[in-house]
Amino acid sequence: MRIGELSRRTGVSVPTIKYYVREGLLPPGELTSPNQASYGEAHERRLRLIRALLDVGGLKVAEIADVLAAVDDRERPLHTVLGAAADRLGGADAEDDDAEAAAARAAVADLLSRRGWVTYESSPAAADLARALAAMARLGHGAFVEVLDDYADAAEQVARTDLAYVDRQVAVEDMVEGAVIGTVLGEAVLSSLRRMAHVDASARRYGADGPRERKRPPHGHAAHRERGKS
Amino acid sequence: MRIGELSRRTGVSVPTIKYYVREGLLPPGELTSPNQASYGEAHERRLRLIRALLDVGGLKVAEIADVLAAVDDRERPLHTVLGAAADRLGGADAEDDDAEAAAARAAVADLLSRRGWVTYESSPAAADLARALAAMARLGHGAFVEVLDDYADAAEQVARTDLAYVDRQVAVEDMVEGAVIGTVLGEAVLSSLRRMAHVDASARRYGADGPRERKRPPHGHAAHRERGKS
Repeated sequence: MRIGELSRRTGVSVPTIKYYVREGLLPPGELTSPNQASYGEAHERRLRLIRALLDVGGLKVAEIADVLAAVDDRERPLHTVLGAAADRLGGADAEDDDAEAAAARAAVADLLSRRGWVTYESSPAAADLARALAAMARLGHGAFVEVLDDYADAAEQVARTDLAYVDRQVAVEDMVEGAVIGTVLGEAVLSSLRRMAHVDASARRYGADGPRERKRPPHGHAAHRERGKS
Repeated sequence: MRIGELSRRTGVSVPTIKYYVREGLLPPGELTSPNQASYGEAHERRLRLIRALLDVGGLKVAEIADVLAAVDDRERPLHTVLGAAADRLGGADAEDDDAEAAAARAAVADLLSRRGWVTYESSPAAADLARALAAMARLGHGAFVEVLDDYADAAEQVARTDLAYVDRQVAVEDMVEGAVIGTVLGEAVLSSLRRMAHVDASARRYGADGPRERKRPPHGHAAHRERGKS
């Protein structure tokens, strides 16, 4: 198909498609004349993947280029491709150096050895976990590490579901690409489900309509902004 | 304490503290002389919360202002405060209008009624979920809805853990603030754990060292970028 048809089918504008080709995200079309290129199903599919990683996964164009290069590198073991995709979901690089940060890193190491999880070198996910736990500890929520195994149970359950799903898809399409889709889009799925489950659990426990006065201990802050309920 | 001491204790610079006060994120200190304000424990704690939402949660300053206003609004039911925090974790506003988007919205409505989840009006989490499912369907992963209940089980487990944790904290500090911390920082915890559980499950199933050739069916893309393994 021509580039205009590819644009129509995917909803991605022609200049954007050309930009993705220039940036190496999308392979160039096959030249059918000096000024005309032809695109196939693989291009359409790759374009949809790029848009999903961009729009739903929140990845940047340069990050997508890295993930796709990992997908296309046939020599690369699957779990390091998953790592390349997953690491794009991580937070900042800043490493704190206080007591809470050290304790959090120790808690993460304990968790990994307790659960016997295989990790790969310099896992950004472990650093992200330590950063979140340290931030909680600084807010007086150091006890959160005590429920970490409940979280890890849930994470394992989701990982099992994902791997079983990826296995099922082998005959249908590229398993590696499917795994990347699952890593990035599955993140959005789990995040939105968790938010809904919170609202449900909270409404059931504390009531959907009543004010929270009864349940809420007094605290020091006055409302410091005039603001309607949004 | 003076602003310099507050800065030293929290690692937040004096100009940044003043900026947070101007933006309404932090209540002003108590004036002890025309040019001097005094800050207390509540300020220190609020500053740490702001930094955690910013650095770990990835929220923007304006979003934090909204979340803190909801926290400080004592009349507001807890589950809508949770909603205000959770909605900041959501994706774009764009609503697609194709067959996949309609099917995904129907799948979300089915899920909610099947599980009997209480939701609140115009839940952005439900819209985010539909958007992720529609993106998957466009990539040929429409069958992912079949494993959605496994994800929902994991989300419920995490929500139960969080609520139990919040309950436990009532005597120690503000439950509402604790719930917001759990919503935003717990997201980072679950995300990093899921990424590690993926790597573990994948390494166990497909091998940590071997190339993936055997397991990977042929596909149409040539590696379109020269790039070392990173």
